[in-house]
Order: sequence, then C-alpha cells, then structure tokens
Amino acid sequence: VSANGGAAFQFPVRVYWEDTDAGGVVFYANYLKFFERARTEWLRAAGVQQQALREATGAIFVVSDTALRYLAPARLDDLLRITVALVEHGRASMLLRQQVWRDTPDTSALLCNGTIRIGCVDAETFRPRRFPAELLPLLSPTASP
Amino acid sequence: VSANGGAAFQFPVRVYWEDTDAGGVVFYANYLKFFERARTEWLRAAGVQQQALREATGAIFVVSDTALRYLAPARLDDLLRITVALVEHGRASMLLRQQVWRDTPDTSALLCNGTIRIGCVDAETFRPRRFPAELLPLLSPTASP
Amino acid sequence: VSANGGAAFQFPVRVYWEDTDAGGVVFYANYLKFFERARTEWLRAAGVQQQALREATGAIFVVSDTALRYLAPARLDDLLRITVALVEHGRASMLLRQQVWRDTPDTSALLCNGTIRIGCVDAETFRPRRFPAELLPLLSPTASP
Amino acid sequence: VSANGGAAFQFPVRVYWEDTDAGGVVFYANYLKFFERARTEWLRAAGVQQQALREATGAIFVVSDTALRYLAPARLDDLLRITVALVEHGRASMLLRQQVWRDTPDTSALLCNGTIRIGCVDAETFRPRRFPAELLPLLSPTASP
Repeated sequence: VSANGGAAFQFPVRVYWEDTDAGGVVFYANYLKFFERARTEWLRAAGVQQQALREATGAIFVVSDTALRYLAPARLDDLLRITVALVEHGRASMLLRQQVWRDTPDTSALLCNGTIRIGCVDAETFRPRRFPAELLPLLSPTASP
Repeated sequence: VSANGGAAFQFPVRVYWEDTDAGGVVFYANYLKFFERARTEWLRAAGVQQQALREATGAIFVVSDTALRYLAPARLDDLLRITVALVEHGRASMLLRQQVWRDTPDTSALLCNGTIRIGCVDAETFRPRRFPAELLPLLSPTASP
Repeated sequence: VSANGGAAFQFPVRVYWEDTDAGGVVFYANYLKFFERARTEWLRAAGVQQQALREATGAIFVVSDTALRYLAPARLDDLLRITVALVEHGRASMLLRQQVWRDTPDTSALLCNGTIRIGCVDAETFRPRRFPAELLPLLSPTASP
Repeated sequence: VSANGGAAFQFPVRVYWEDTDAGGVVFYANYLKFFERARTEWLRAAGVQQQALREATGAIFVVSDTALRYLAPARLDDLLRITVALVEHGRASMLLRQQVWRDTPDTSALLCNGTIRIGCVDAETFRPRRFPAELLPLLSPTASP
C-alpha cells in the first residue's frame, strides 16, 4: 500500500552487465535509470506517451529532487521489481515514492528506497507549466485504488 | 532465417530517456547494450545464467570483435526487437549476427546490423578456455530449428 | 568555503553526447556519475587509489544515501565544475556535500546541489568496517585548509 | 603516424566506476563513449564546437559504421590514451581510425583498435548533407602534420 493509500505501480527490471560495476553490484546511478523506466511505464499504463505528449502540448517532465537510500546491493541476473506511488501533487509538480525490490520464493528484500519530485516544464524554455490534461487521471485521488 | 538455417532469437527492448542523446535519437554505444541484453536472454532461454556459470565453472564470456552498421535512428518510446543468431563457432569463440528492428503494423525497419564475436575466458586470468558443457546445446546445428 | 571550514575540492567535467538525453540536457542520473568521478579524484589527490586500496586492505566504499536538488540543466559542450567537501564523518561513514557549477566569464551558476553519504565495507561481504588508515588524512579537521 | 601521414590526435580518459562492469573490466560499449569524447575534443581542438555548429548550420554528425577489436581489458583507475586519425573522407562522410592505449613507464599496450565512419546530416531530417565549411581544415591533407 502506497503513501496515498493506493497500491503502487510495479515494473520488472532485469540486471544486465551494463548495470553493474567492478564492485560486482549495480552502480548507484543506475537505480535512477530503473526509476525513470518505471515512471515511463506508469505513465504509459495510464495512456500517456511522453514523446507524443511533447509533440501535442510542448510539455516535458523534469526531475527537480531525488533522495535515495541504498539498503542492499543488486547483482547481475537479479530480477528487480521497481515501484511507483504518488505521494502528493500540485498543478505543476508531483512527489513520487519509488522503490527497488528483489523477490525470491521465500522473501522480498527492499534494496533501494527513494522519493522523486517531478515538475512539468515547457520543452523549449524549461519554464514551469501546468500538467497537461492528459495527466489528470493519474493525479486523481482514486488513480490507484 | 539465420545464417545457420535457424530462426533468430528475439528480445524486445523499449527505448527510454537514458538511451537517447541530445540529437533526439538513441546514442550509438547503447545498441551494444541492447545486443548484450539480448545475448544474455538468448543464453537464459537455453538455461545458462552467466553469474551461476561463473561460480560453477570460472568461465565468463568476453567480446573480442564488434562490427555495426547504423541504418536508421531509434527514438524515445520506440519498441525495438533485438535478434541473436549463431553464424559459426569453434571451441572457445563464436560469431553472432545481431540486429535491431522496429516493427510497426505496416512494416519492419532494420535499424542496426551487427556481428559480434564472443570468446570464453577464465574470469580471473582472462585467458581463453573452452566453452563449458552447459553451452553446447546452443552451439549444436539444431539449436535453433 | 565548505562545512568544515575548508575550500571544496574541485574537478572539471566536460559534457559529451553520452551525458545528454533527448530533452537536450544532461540526463539526471549522470550527475551521480560526475559526483563519483570527483570523489575518486578527491581521493586520488590525497594519495588514495581505490583499486590499490582494495587489493591492500579489502576495503571498498559504497554509497548509502544520496539527496540531489536539480536547479538548472547542463547541456552539450558545457564545462562543469564538480565540488567535493566533507561535512562530517564517523569511523565507517562520511557525509559529503557535492555540487555542479557552470562558470562563464560573467557568472557561476549552481546547477545541482547534493549530499552523499559514503560507507566503508569489506569488498567480499559488504559488511561495514572502519575506514583504512590511508584515508585518515582526508578526514582530519585541517584536511582542506 | 596516421594513415594520412600525420600524427594522431590524442585525448586522455581515466577509467571510473561507471565505466566498469562486474567482470572487473571496462564494459565493451563504453569504448564507444571514449571514442566519441576523443572525436569531440579533436573537433574542439580544430575550433569546431558541435552545439554551436548545429545552431549555426543545422548540421550534426552521425556514426554510420563502427568496427572494434578488443585486444586487452582496461580496469578501474587506468589512465587511457584515446587516439583519432583521419583515414579518408568524402564531402559528407569520413573514416577515422581510433585506438585505446594504456601507457606505463615501461610499455604502451594497445587495448582496442577501431574504425568509425562518420556522416554529416541535417539535425531535423537526418538526411545526408555536405560537411560545413568549418570542418574543411580538419579534412585537408596537411591537417595533422
């Protein structure tokens, strides 16, 4: 159950060689890649394609804040579960909780716990603007019942 | 149909923001990431997990040659189809043909055409060694009927 | 002036195509790459090479927390200045302030403001351990006078 | 000495954690990043900045072919020397030889040997176009005497 009482959106990510570093684990920046993939699929599941949205409205999303706690390392061949849950939002920004889980038959381990603030800006000027109407269903209180 | 008369293995890859560059298209190095993911899944489909194989046998795979022709750019949100087909092999190296396709309802476009030579080495010394027995089914003439 | 009264360590980073995304700006995960490069050079400037340290002591550094605020985008060809300043430390972890600046003849713009917590762990077990003695000069109050 | 009789352009690259993978060596796709950085600096050394060139002329460079042979692995903390040498060119494409070297006091080891074909295209349409005049000095027979 997410912070707003709804179930989080979930997206699977496999760990490949490109994701790891010489420490034998996933490089710390790459969790932000996994989070971005999951956000994109969360939008896609709601019918929002970012390239089409930009062409139609001139709007793109930018990240303004990230806070991540790394709890345990992920490794090559791991199958991870990335979550997205809306915490709160205004007219031009939203706060998401995102997590990385590794599930095994016996247990689920939380590997990384994050909060990400997303803003909506004009693709040319990078000035803040309201979320386009296409996004409103995702932001309604009953979006993730 | 692949060079050895079999159908190529296929693996889907979605293009995310991380894959693109300021030219608006997928950065040229990232096709090698897509190829690696597809090779890993080709091995996995045959029951070979690289991390487990390394722990059991000390063997890892390394790339010794790549040759890529970039025919048309991929873009954000594209769903790509990456292929893997065995062209030929010896006891310690194999040559693969790998391609990137973008399918639409009307047509399939070949975006990138590559050949990749893979060798088997000892994980500690990086010296060439024979492919472990786990890999032999993939290398048989009837591997991909 | 850093939190411990010393000037921050500084390291230049040029923005290349690999760093940008289809939004025309540096992809948000890549600031963590820039921060890691600057930390590595901060260590190297103090005589600590991580690969040699690992071989000699078995210790590696891992990131346990990151908090980044993205203030303005960096673009292709920008020359950035990445800073590292020690905020506080214990025997097995330290807190760093790291920033991304873009200098022009007229002004300096702060593009990204971060705090990064680093821990010291055993490379095999990933269990926390004390910082090796090689690191102590970096952690002294007069490290960056 | 390069194929056109001139010394190759050289650019140093340090190997950071981001460049390595769980095999303990530089991930194979990342040599293409190193090559791109060196090409960008080769252009910059000749007075050509790609972002400014695009704004002034609408031209960008795209890679149409890469062929790399991986001879020996690079590792964390290695200082590499990346080279760029013009092999041949037409009015809208050029062939470059690029190499990765690791120098030690005693010897220089060639780690990766590549050829890269670059084309010039319109940034909007990706259609081939002639190299802009700003590039001609680089393409002259006496460019790298």
